[in-house]
Amino acid sequence: MDDKPFVVGLLLFPRLTLLDLIGPYQVFERAPGFETHLIAKTTAPVADSSGVALVPTATFASAPQLDLLCVPGGPGEADAYEDEDTLGFVREAAAKAQYVTSVCTGSLILGAAGLLRGRRAASHWASREMIATFGGIPDEGRVVVDGNLITGGGVTAGIDFALEVVARIRGAESAQMRQLSLEYAPAPPFDAGSPDTAPPQVVDKLWTGMEPFLAQRRERAKRAAARLG
Amino acid sequence: MDDKPFVVGLLLFPRLTLLDLIGPYQVFERAPGFETHLIAKTTAPVADSSGVALVPTATFASAPQLDLLCVPGGPGEADAYEDEDTLGFVREAAAKAQYVTSVCTGSLILGAAGLLRGRRAASHWASREMIATFGGIPDEGRVVVDGNLITGGGVTAGIDFALEVVARIRGAESAQMRQLSLEYAPAPPFDAGSPDTAPPQVVDKLWTGMEPFLAQRRERAKRAAARLG
Repeated sequence: MDDKPFVVGLLLFPRLTLLDLIGPYQVFERAPGFETHLIAKTTAPVADSSGVALVPTATFASAPQLDLLCVPGGPGEADAYEDEDTLGFVREAAAKAQYVTSVCTGSLILGAAGLLRGRRAASHWASREMIATFGGIPDEGRVVVDGNLITGGGVTAGIDFALEVVARIRGAESAQMRQLSLEYAPAPPFDAGSPDTAPPQVVDKLWTGMEPFLAQRRERAKRAAARLG
Repeated sequence: MDDKPFVVGLLLFPRLTLLDLIGPYQVFERAPGFETHLIAKTTAPVADSSGVALVPTATFASAPQLDLLCVPGGPGEADAYEDEDTLGFVREAAAKAQYVTSVCTGSLILGAAGLLRGRRAASHWASREMIATFGGIPDEGRVVVDGNLITGGGVTAGIDFALEVVARIRGAESAQMRQLSLEYAPAPPFDAGSPDTAPPQVVDKLWTGMEPFLAQRRERAKRAAARLG
């Protein structure tokens, strides 16, 4: 193994979905030779969509140069479209990184930073179409690799995504050790994790509940895409 | 649905494993009628085993009466055995709760509080035998139900565990909605999440790396069990 650490930075932004972040974080944080940072605009605790706050370990200004940038998603993602400091950090870190990555609707933040044009990417199933708003190609994969762009689907896909990343960087055995350490032998009590397998009334109810929020998000994505020109 | 919220409290303690906590948290936090708290000794941010800090939402003194207590695990769990404030809170909350639950080595904290005697419980695979140290019956299940005691296996088992809990409290459809919302259709890139399926050299390497830590933990569990009398 290379002696130089492989430096990962995960973006922390207000109203993110905690599990989008912590799934990959827990895979990366003890991967051999990985050095992992949680990066926010300032050192102030950042509250997730439910109000629980996490303390950043680095800021946009103090973060080291990243080998891999990872952007999680969450309800606050459309606010990030409109925050030039955040988009500026994402663009700059992505330009220098070996890999540009996201989990869930984090791919839409990459889109708002102009990083999805002509590229295949994953997102949360309910927001996947918005990848096209930013000039990208929506892909149904749980983990989608297009050159140096690696994107995961909704929330829990971040665990599968991160194991795939560790396997690419440090080999399959390193990823398998992380998987065993996290006892990741999933056994969901239902087969309802995708709109293709969930009972139709479950999909309908969730969709109906989310639609007003998604309509707003679509509008904000269009405006963010227009600003990119 | 009952109008009264179902009050869940997850214990926050130093050097816990973040994903033990955040997996179930993310399932519970938008489950219908659930009210979820992250409870620590004081309001100060609590650092996980890697130094990342989370801000508690309630303290031992301020937490409401819980319908469900959930204790996550992590490297700091043996310190919790030796902290009478923490054990006292766990005992008192458990005595009043409808359900007493844990994820990963959190079950050993329940053990140190005297709550595992004669009961079947799960834990992280590498620490499972220590359930017997506290008078419990180690069980290989990913989610183990023994009366009002519901325990999950290592780290990621917390997601399966929490879906099972939501199904029991609010019905299968509520759990399926959370599963779909979190796009929990897991697709690990390897089949290495259990010592029964991981390549033998992966199990050996991980075990060799963990053994000095486990040896200490076993001693501390014995001392904690002895204190229970």
